[in-house]
Amino acid sequence: MSVRDVVRRALAEDLGVLGDVSAALVPPDGRARGTITARAAGVVAGRLGALEAFRQVDEAIAVEWCLPDGSPVEPGSVIASIDGPLAPVLTAERTALNLVGRLSGIATLTRRYVEAAGPSVRILDTRKTGPGLRALEKAAVRAGGGANHRGSLSDGVLIKDNHLTGITITQALGRARQRWPRLLVEVECDTERQVKEAVEAGADAVLLDNMSPAQAAACVSLVAGRCRTEVSGGVSLETVAAYAEAGVDDISVGALTHSAPALDVGLDLLAGRAGGA
Amino acid sequence: MSVRDVVRRALAEDLGVLGDVSAALVPPDGRARGTITARAAGVVAGRLGALEAFRQVDEAIAVEWCLPDGSPVEPGSVIASIDGPLAPVLTAERTALNLVGRLSGIATLTRRYVEAAGPSVRILDTRKTGPGLRALEKAAVRAGGGANHRGSLSDGVLIKDNHLTGITITQALGRARQRWPRLLVEVECDTERQVKEAVEAGADAVLLDNMSPAQAAACVSLVAGRCRTEVSGGVSLETVAAYAEAGVDDISVGALTHSAPALDVGLDLLAGRAGGA
Amino acid sequence: MSVRDVVRRALAEDLGVLGDVSAALVPPDGRARGTITARAAGVVAGRLGALEAFRQVDEAIAVEWCLPDGSPVEPGSVIASIDGPLAPVLTAERTALNLVGRLSGIATLTRRYVEAAGPSVRILDTRKTGPGLRALEKAAVRAGGGANHRGSLSDGVLIKDNHLTGITITQALGRARQRWPRLLVEVECDTERQVKEAVEAGADAVLLDNMSPAQAAACVSLVAGRCRTEVSGGVSLETVAAYAEAGVDDISVGALTHSAPALDVGLDLLAGRAGGA
Amino acid sequence: MSVRDVVRRALAEDLGVLGDVSAALVPPDGRARGTITARAAGVVAGRLGALEAFRQVDEAIAVEWCLPDGSPVEPGSVIASIDGPLAPVLTAERTALNLVGRLSGIATLTRRYVEAAGPSVRILDTRKTGPGLRALEKAAVRAGGGANHRGSLSDGVLIKDNHLTGITITQALGRARQRWPRLLVEVECDTERQVKEAVEAGADAVLLDNMSPAQAAACVSLVAGRCRTEVSGGVSLETVAAYAEAGVDDISVGALTHSAPALDVGLDLLAGRAGGA
Amino acid sequence: MSVRDVVRRALAEDLGVLGDVSAALVPPDGRARGTITARAAGVVAGRLGALEAFRQVDEAIAVEWCLPDGSPVEPGSVIASIDGPLAPVLTAERTALNLVGRLSGIATLTRRYVEAAGPSVRILDTRKTGPGLRALEKAAVRAGGGANHRGSLSDGVLIKDNHLTGITITQALGRARQRWPRLLVEVECDTERQVKEAVEAGADAVLLDNMSPAQAAACVSLVAGRCRTEVSGGVSLETVAAYAEAGVDDISVGALTHSAPALDVGLDLLAGRAGGA
Amino acid sequence: MSVRDVVRRALAEDLGVLGDVSAALVPPDGRARGTITARAAGVVAGRLGALEAFRQVDEAIAVEWCLPDGSPVEPGSVIASIDGPLAPVLTAERTALNLVGRLSGIATLTRRYVEAAGPSVRILDTRKTGPGLRALEKAAVRAGGGANHRGSLSDGVLIKDNHLTGITITQALGRARQRWPRLLVEVECDTERQVKEAVEAGADAVLLDNMSPAQAAACVSLVAGRCRTEVSGGVSLETVAAYAEAGVDDISVGALTHSAPALDVGLDLLAGRAGGA
Repeated sequence: MSVRDVVRRALAEDLGVLGDVSAALVPPDGRARGTITARAAGVVAGRLGALEAFRQVDEAIAVEWCLPDGSPVEPGSVIASIDGPLAPVLTAERTALNLVGRLSGIATLTRRYVEAAGPSVRILDTRKTGPGLRALEKAAVRAGGGANHRGSLSDGVLIKDNHLTGITITQALGRARQRWPRLLVEVECDTERQVKEAVEAGADAVLLDNMSPAQAAACVSLVAGRCRTEVSGGVSLETVAAYAEAGVDDISVGALTHSAPALDVGLDLLAGRAGGA
Repeated sequence: MSVRDVVRRALAEDLGVLGDVSAALVPPDGRARGTITARAAGVVAGRLGALEAFRQVDEAIAVEWCLPDGSPVEPGSVIASIDGPLAPVLTAERTALNLVGRLSGIATLTRRYVEAAGPSVRILDTRKTGPGLRALEKAAVRAGGGANHRGSLSDGVLIKDNHLTGITITQALGRARQRWPRLLVEVECDTERQVKEAVEAGADAVLLDNMSPAQAAACVSLVAGRCRTEVSGGVSLETVAAYAEAGVDDISVGALTHSAPALDVGLDLLAGRAGGA
Repeated sequence: MSVRDVVRRALAEDLGVLGDVSAALVPPDGRARGTITARAAGVVAGRLGALEAFRQVDEAIAVEWCLPDGSPVEPGSVIASIDGPLAPVLTAERTALNLVGRLSGIATLTRRYVEAAGPSVRILDTRKTGPGLRALEKAAVRAGGGANHRGSLSDGVLIKDNHLTGITITQALGRARQRWPRLLVEVECDTERQVKEAVEAGADAVLLDNMSPAQAAACVSLVAGRCRTEVSGGVSLETVAAYAEAGVDDISVGALTHSAPALDVGLDLLAGRAGGA
Repeated sequence: MSVRDVVRRALAEDLGVLGDVSAALVPPDGRARGTITARAAGVVAGRLGALEAFRQVDEAIAVEWCLPDGSPVEPGSVIASIDGPLAPVLTAERTALNLVGRLSGIATLTRRYVEAAGPSVRILDTRKTGPGLRALEKAAVRAGGGANHRGSLSDGVLIKDNHLTGITITQALGRARQRWPRLLVEVECDTERQVKEAVEAGADAVLLDNMSPAQAAACVSLVAGRCRTEVSGGVSLETVAAYAEAGVDDISVGALTHSAPALDVGLDLLAGRAGGA
Repeated sequence: MSVRDVVRRALAEDLGVLGDVSAALVPPDGRARGTITARAAGVVAGRLGALEAFRQVDEAIAVEWCLPDGSPVEPGSVIASIDGPLAPVLTAERTALNLVGRLSGIATLTRRYVEAAGPSVRILDTRKTGPGLRALEKAAVRAGGGANHRGSLSDGVLIKDNHLTGITITQALGRARQRWPRLLVEVECDTERQVKEAVEAGADAVLLDNMSPAQAAACVSLVAGRCRTEVSGGVSLETVAAYAEAGVDDISVGALTHSAPALDVGLDLLAGRAGGA
Repeated sequence: MSVRDVVRRALAEDLGVLGDVSAALVPPDGRARGTITARAAGVVAGRLGALEAFRQVDEAIAVEWCLPDGSPVEPGSVIASIDGPLAPVLTAERTALNLVGRLSGIATLTRRYVEAAGPSVRILDTRKTGPGLRALEKAAVRAGGGANHRGSLSDGVLIKDNHLTGITITQALGRARQRWPRLLVEVECDTERQVKEAVEAGADAVLLDNMSPAQAAACVSLVAGRCRTEVSGGVSLETVAAYAEAGVDDISVGALTHSAPALDVGLDLLAGRAGGA
């Protein structure tokens, strides 16, 4: 659903009051045939957004999508082919490419973390997403082979340091169980002592915050399978394998969504004017 | 204006149906005193967004902003201090930090390009911005010392290859002058021949697309001050100085907005419960 | 957040093009002093909505709320006192009362179920809520002493009959675990055999669908504490105690939100015109 | 028009950030064939809303509606038949059923009042409707055989006690005529004396507020056909016939919209997977 | 309510992506003191819109409104005085003036019709209003001394030629009474014969369409006070008095809202910079 | 894009809660065949808006548009032909005609100015447009043969008197060039001295404010082709030719959008009921 609104707002800000003043100059019978093509290696995502951008600008634009989200691409890989009236294709181009480039960037970085971590852990995203873009960015994480942490503050309880003013972990967990019987409860822990308390109080998961791989491994032993274990904070492509070896279930990485460079994608039109000799 | 809508949507997606289920667990009289602090070096931006996030969640949260947008920060620099009821501060935290982190990341990368390029050129952004976030991201570019290229398709004419199906640059420029007498007209050029035609036809600016510094320098000589010159495509922190030396007026860099890693910022609360002994 | 939008839409539909044509007739210096009063016994809810309605119509209306959401009321109980300019109080009246009446009706019915069921189970709501009103209605359920089931389709996995076309419960659970590692997974079961499969495949909860109390009790024995048990379908105020005795953890009741009669509440203004002799 | 917005908001709150996580588990080529079926006796309404819900989720879902709004149904009556891809049918199911169940509940209760009152009076609704849902709920009242009172505060003048601070009924009516020459003017009356004044001052209708049938009959005699008469307040299915016998023109009943229990409706899918043997 | 949305949209379209690029050039401590002044004679309207425009841009702008809507102005009349920070005053200026100019133009033209027609008739508006601006424009008509015809298609029944395909006026009136017992029913008539039928069938008003004053007078005689009479079509400032003399109750004039020239109003700032020597 | 929102809002305000109560009376199988016809001479505009109005009300309405925007019309000219179900055609009629009438009025007045001014100058619009309607109104100006001045405050720098508190024109121009290298900079001038300063400081255009044709001619000589010249203020159909003769490049006229009387257009349906004999 959300993709419609995201595209509507993106087009509105790009069109302004006068609309696409440059596209207004092309011949009215001009025709655009071409492809959306990757210009770098990565993992593609954003199909729904790009389709919606072309559709909202002009339903007469035919788009054939060649690679489902999650497909690997190399420079030159054809992601989609386009055929339609020239002016609206040019008008929709940037909005469509911005979506594909940004979301493919997220999928690409996710895939790199997944591959670096190996099959024993799950790579999770965080709530550190672009304002108003979370549904799309979390879908891109899935396209890259990661899984989603909480979709929103409403989806699960995460008890952090800042929630523990004046109450113990055990008390907070009790309140959470009482108030939200149908939500997973996770506790952010900085020390083994906190992990011990959280597990004994019945947490569904512990978030091992800014620990070294060795510290994380010690906590995993301490948990001994009684709940899920997650590492968060300071994980990079270089260190992710070490955390995986520590035996945790999940590794969450804010960078997947807040610092992924866009994948370079472009629209290549065939030369020549439609209908022309 | 836009910042209100961006924050409203970001909060709506983060609150979901049940709201902040974790913050609902803290004592109702809990108080939050603390700071938003940089955890890495960079340039700060996003003040208005963060203020709006706290304000929309609870007007009782007092925020004192210490560093205007564009200020340099080091790890540990205090960006703002917060004082208010605990639960709403926790609820607004992520939305506020997401804005500051993302926009400061853009300002930081912009500053790096500006410094690498030196004072003889302007670093410009592009339309490769986050969907629905363009006004905020372009303000962050200004905070970083860059300047803004077109705000929208409605703000200026940019004649690209794809607009030139069946008509010449000269014809396209004539149409643009006729139809949009009050807009700057820029022509994207791949060759010196195109540059020559564009300048002679009266373009306000030429965009030298994917040229080497040497090619760009040749075009600058050819233009001879008759219009602005802009380089775009393939510019990196490593190469930007070479382009600056080529004598162009402007260098536009899509990466400023599509690939800037977020600046790491956090909310540090003082321990202790308000009203407590 | 949502309460602002709900009130904005409710006022927009009530004001139409000409606004409150009746309130336009009262003297401009008229003053309204009075109370929002219960006219039947129940449990009050909807404070935020009512406050927002008066605030959006005129910030000069002072409202003092006397009874927090969840408070029991008798006929004549004063819920809030109002003091402000007459015309806007009359304009906001119906919107405010509609919210309090409807949400208090939900809290009241919830309380009745909670009391009929006794302390051994939790009464849960469902997704059978008023379109666009879910956040407010689920808050009213909490005010009545119930707890919330899923806030949205995004908050938890619930595998129903209709999801099991061509795959087994075990397969579906496996997929759910793989795809959504951070969500509770519940399986709707019509038979003991399904319950057995679900529990053995590691479900977090089983939903016992349209079972008699005796059938439910048998399933509870079978589950033997390995996951949560929930009864749903055909539960009434008359039968809820029998289900509670069956030993289930949760009883979900769609009627809490889809069939709760409104609580009768009214606005009683003191006679006499402000400033008058 | 409004139905689009109501459905859009209902789907948005139900889909959240991650979307329908359960439907994501079904086979991509799964097909849903089945019916929307009544599970209790009543009067059906909500066709447009249900169609819109399926349409917004996936235009590939074919819905054939069998019973126009206002049709009586028995348990087992087929209201509509559905044929489409499985996952989106499951995603749209609850939103569609919530609309049909709620609006059919209103139509059903209206029909019961209409039948209890007999043909000599009109059963009217009030403004006590679900926030943001008034257009749909008032259409459901019409489907049940009732008629609509004011659509909004902008549609007609209703002078109540609270409007009469410092001015007489006659003065208020004069102002109303002067200011709103094209709107019906009705006066809420608690006593025969007020009725007399209202009629003599030229009211288009008098609202007999919280009167007994006998009091209402006396007022009807007093009015003697000079304007419409309406009874409101304290009318139940048990007493509505007595008010009808009192000779009033209209009986307005807030419960039609604020307290109608939902009609039980369900989606029954045929077993078996599409394309399967 | 509506005024907030109108102003929000007007500011959004005026600010674009980069905001007020000119106001960004003034000194940050600049102060604006001045007045909104009429530059032509007329009747002022639009106070709420202008206040809202300044408020939405910056709550620090103090506006003192001197002339309530409906006040006559001469060139030089001070409508409001402004005091606030310079940049936001300049940013809000055009939006505020556009509202005051346009709505005052409507009030001014209405006043001219009211004065030309004399006190025996009411001047009514129509639904020929600016898209999305009806509530504000109809308020401006009231400020000018006119009254409002239907606010929307939902406010009253108006049976026109095009509704009478295959049914008689009498039949249509019967249906209207049956279906909409609480709405005024008016019938558009081109001939005396139609007027006769409408009155005898019990219309609340007849709309005499495109008749000469003499024809209208004949119809007024025929109606003989049995319902309201309205003239519409072809009424100008020159002819309105003749129609008034024909004895009709109401004269509706589309030009009030679709063709009123704006009243010239301007913002005059005092020279000199705040705080300056 | 914008046209969808304008039409959506216009329909929402016209439909209210009960919808089109009059159209609800026509036979359900009624059919409307007819034309949108000009009733006065002028230039037509608003095609997209009218098409969208019919489409949003009912996609089954077929509209064939005969005259592209910018076409001259005489009384009786057929602008479009309509064929569709009767009730929705009647419901959409007013919204569609309001758009065509208003926008054609703007196109018509623009054409009159263009013809009065002659081919040596451009007639420009201003930002004095209907709130929320700027994109449509500026398109109508183009349809009439005019050109657009700034689309928004974000599209170009215009330095006015009120911006010059404490700084000189030269300083303001320098700041503008520094801050907004990609926007045209125009300076409003009241005197030749200001014109001289602006031109020497490198303005792209000077706006000659409220000057006589003779004063304007003197300024044009002074400018001597070094930048564009624009006259604004006090230009009427009577004086526009004199300003054109003064040799300015552009003449901007606020009246094009704030004071254009609507073009009279109507919907004429063929008599007779569809399907009838």
